[in-house]
Amino acid sequence: MRYFEDFQPGDVSEHGPLVVSREDIIAFATQFDPQPFHLSDEAARDSIFGGLVASGWHTASLCHRLLVQSFLGQTASLGSPGLDELRWLKPVRPGDALRVRVEVVSATPSRSKPDRGALKLRMEVRNQKDEVVMTELANVLFGRRPQGGAPTA
Amino acid sequence: MRYFEDFQPGDVSEHGPLVVSREDIIAFATQFDPQPFHLSDEAARDSIFGGLVASGWHTASLCHRLLVQSFLGQTASLGSPGLDELRWLKPVRPGDALRVRVEVVSATPSRSKPDRGALKLRMEVRNQKDEVVMTELANVLFGRRPQGGAPTA
Repeated sequence: MRYFEDFQPGDVSEHGPLVVSREDIIAFATQFDPQPFHLSDEAARDSIFGGLVASGWHTASLCHRLLVQSFLGQTASLGSPGLDELRWLKPVRPGDALRVRVEVVSATPSRSKPDRGALKLRMEVRNQKDEVVMTELANVLFGRRPQGGAPTA
Repeated sequence: MRYFEDFQPGDVSEHGPLVVSREDIIAFATQFDPQPFHLSDEAARDSIFGGLVASGWHTASLCHRLLVQSFLGQTASLGSPGLDELRWLKPVRPGDALRVRVEVVSATPSRSKPDRGALKLRMEVRNQKDEVVMTELANVLFGRRPQGGAPTA
């Protein structure tokens, strides 16, 4: 189990790959983003994307899944108050293999709640051609290491 | 069909409600955010949330669905380059009914591409108690109204 104290500014890790299928793209879009360029090859061909592309919310959710599976999963994560600078830079297409690079930008102990602290994480999602397709700057709250007392999370 | 020219700074619209079920919360979390407080009532009871809560990415995706269904759907939307200031302010719980308020903050014609422009939209998601659960500031590209020529989107 890793706590707030176990992360330092400058720490970098990479997670993935995760392959995005045509079926996954269409299933997500049907539920959350039913725009023509996310729903079918035919409709997408005539769009500015020239072919089917994943919803940006799908890419962000897949990035989060990689983060939870191999970064947050073994930690005292307490959820996130939000994020900034979410950028969709390149389309994600069927068959793309995504990797996430996570860099710890800052680690700030809470002033009001001594049992936790906030990490600022810069995330970069790349495809198999090493093109950056998405970036974001996320805030995540972490429990601090218990001082011989009860666990914090 | 509404184009870039049909939106003015200060325009406000409301969309929804959309009710979030326990099954939807767990299904989304299983795929994209498998943390204990999103997966089961039992595990969530012992977390800082005191009960099951929706993934923030689920709330954001549902907000986007409302936007596409009743705002972007009948427009020349060309997708989004990104967003800022995404904030998860209150937990979303099973049975919550969400509404989205959209305000046009600015409308800027593209300098390099005369067939489009960018809208900055401030979005606010409220629950049935009128509590603001999420906010974001999104950028969306729109096609401009065709000047008697070929359609732009």
